[in-house]
Amino acid sequence: MKLATVRYRGKQAVGVLDLNRGCVWPLAELLAGSEPSCHGDMVQVIRRYDRLRDRITLHRSSGIDLREVEFEAPIPRPARNLFCVGKNYRDHAHEFANSGFDRSLSRPSDPTPDAPIVFTKLPESVIATGAAILYPDGISDSLDYEGELAVVIGRQGRAIARQRALEYVWGYTIINDITARDWQARHQQWFLGKSFDTFCPMGPWVATADELDPGGLRIRTWVNGQLRQDANTDDMIFGVPALIETISAGITLYPGDIIATGTPAGVGIGFVPPRYLRRGDEVAIEITGIGVLRNPVR
Amino acid sequence: MKLATVRYRGKQAVGVLDLNRGCVWPLAELLAGSEPSCHGDMVQVIRRYDRLRDRITLHRSSGIDLREVEFEAPIPRPARNLFCVGKNYRDHAHEFANSGFDRSLSRPSDPTPDAPIVFTKLPESVIATGAAILYPDGISDSLDYEGELAVVIGRQGRAIARQRALEYVWGYTIINDITARDWQARHQQWFLGKSFDTFCPMGPWVATADELDPGGLRIRTWVNGQLRQDANTDDMIFGVPALIETISAGITLYPGDIIATGTPAGVGIGFVPPRYLRRGDEVAIEITGIGVLRNPVR
Repeated sequence: MKLATVRYRGKQAVGVLDLNRGCVWPLAELLAGSEPSCHGDMVQVIRRYDRLRDRITLHRSSGIDLREVEFEAPIPRPARNLFCVGKNYRDHAHEFANSGFDRSLSRPSDPTPDAPIVFTKLPESVIATGAAILYPDGISDSLDYEGELAVVIGRQGRAIARQRALEYVWGYTIINDITARDWQARHQQWFLGKSFDTFCPMGPWVATADELDPGGLRIRTWVNGQLRQDANTDDMIFGVPALIETISAGITLYPGDIIATGTPAGVGIGFVPPRYLRRGDEVAIEITGIGVLRNPVR
Repeated sequence: MKLATVRYRGKQAVGVLDLNRGCVWPLAELLAGSEPSCHGDMVQVIRRYDRLRDRITLHRSSGIDLREVEFEAPIPRPARNLFCVGKNYRDHAHEFANSGFDRSLSRPSDPTPDAPIVFTKLPESVIATGAAILYPDGISDSLDYEGELAVVIGRQGRAIARQRALEYVWGYTIINDITARDWQARHQQWFLGKSFDTFCPMGPWVATADELDPGGLRIRTWVNGQLRQDANTDDMIFGVPALIETISAGITLYPGDIIATGTPAGVGIGFVPPRYLRRGDEVAIEITGIGVLRNPVR
């Protein structure tokens, strides 16, 4: 199932998508008369999904044309910072090391991390598909994109073993981990250069884990139609189960938490000279089985 | 003025402290009949403080004995991760470099950062004074303390110049930036080793910026009564105004945001051999003009 947070006639609603027919059903209509409090809030839907799921059957006749709704990020304002993984594809770890921007590099001979590298992005940096990434005028001139598979947590848990980790995943979406490379390098810890306002495009919607497996997904990023990243989620150094095991070892995870799993090779600083984003560019990221996240730079 | 979040007769309330007389007044009583929605929520009080402030006059006769209330953290569950500054005292930057735990170190000859290093701690890691820091059994054996002055933001702002930065500060409190040193080193980015559940003791209350200046404050940390850290906030490499300028350059700050300003020398890994925290220890941190934050390790 694909679920989106949409704005329709001025109201925010969680909707179920039928991409073949190009329409969306507000959950409120499918579940008429019940659970009124959860219809606009994706995290409430996640918490109740086990109970709601079997009651969702798409009407054959109705539904709202997708062109009539505006997409929000699936979780427009996460309850806390997003968990983000760095250098989780081998080829990207090497391109990042070679770029000279990796101040965290302690073994230049092998830039591949021996344990997951985790930093965060602020909830307020999240924007929807179609919304503009604001060029950080006057404070950075090295804006970069990073296409990533993002995991949406569905159940509370701590000390989750990797063998059971996928039971804690509710779904998958796409994140563009926008980065000010000069800030990332200058400030050593990556948080600041990753968290400027609008630096976290997320969406366009969530594909639930009951229909999608995180392995074997093709992930591609284009800038102005030019293919820049083309990889497979099987190439992650630390897969989704290992990431959940590591993060939850000392930290309780909650429904609605988001883990961005790292970007493959092909980011702007992977090129010589670097191909930074400029005002007027458009970044599109596609992951098999999810969709396309598309954002202009303004 | 000193304001605390307390629990009294089963209810959470924001209270005004009179430490000389050892009592606290629930804001609800001081402002009887008005603003009912803000009485239990410190962030709501912060947002309305300019309007509330002059209406707060302490009654001479009443007030609740401090021994009858339980302290919560001043902001028990911040709305997003806490901003935390690393290596912001020269002596500590050196002790950390010498400890071998600093995987971010790019210039061993001079460990002093040339720009603020900012990472985050999860809101759910916050605990009150008196609450137990849970020993991370089986996942870390290098638990360390870090006494820090913490800034509470009072006004929304972005691109705040350092000359005006203190206008955006509502008050000051104390944070113990508990760290699993092995995780901090192994995972390169510091977030994971800083964010385990219970790793952010905060409090005991907030001293408002209209009565306290962030400079010239003595900060001391004891473990089981033994003095470990003894420094002055004047020794920060990047002072509070510079930190606010840097963080807000690309990031909008909101009322209730918290910035922990870094720890001075004297942490556990500063000793040879390291003096890690053990179960049964008690950490006390005192900052002039604020109070004492005291937490056991269990």
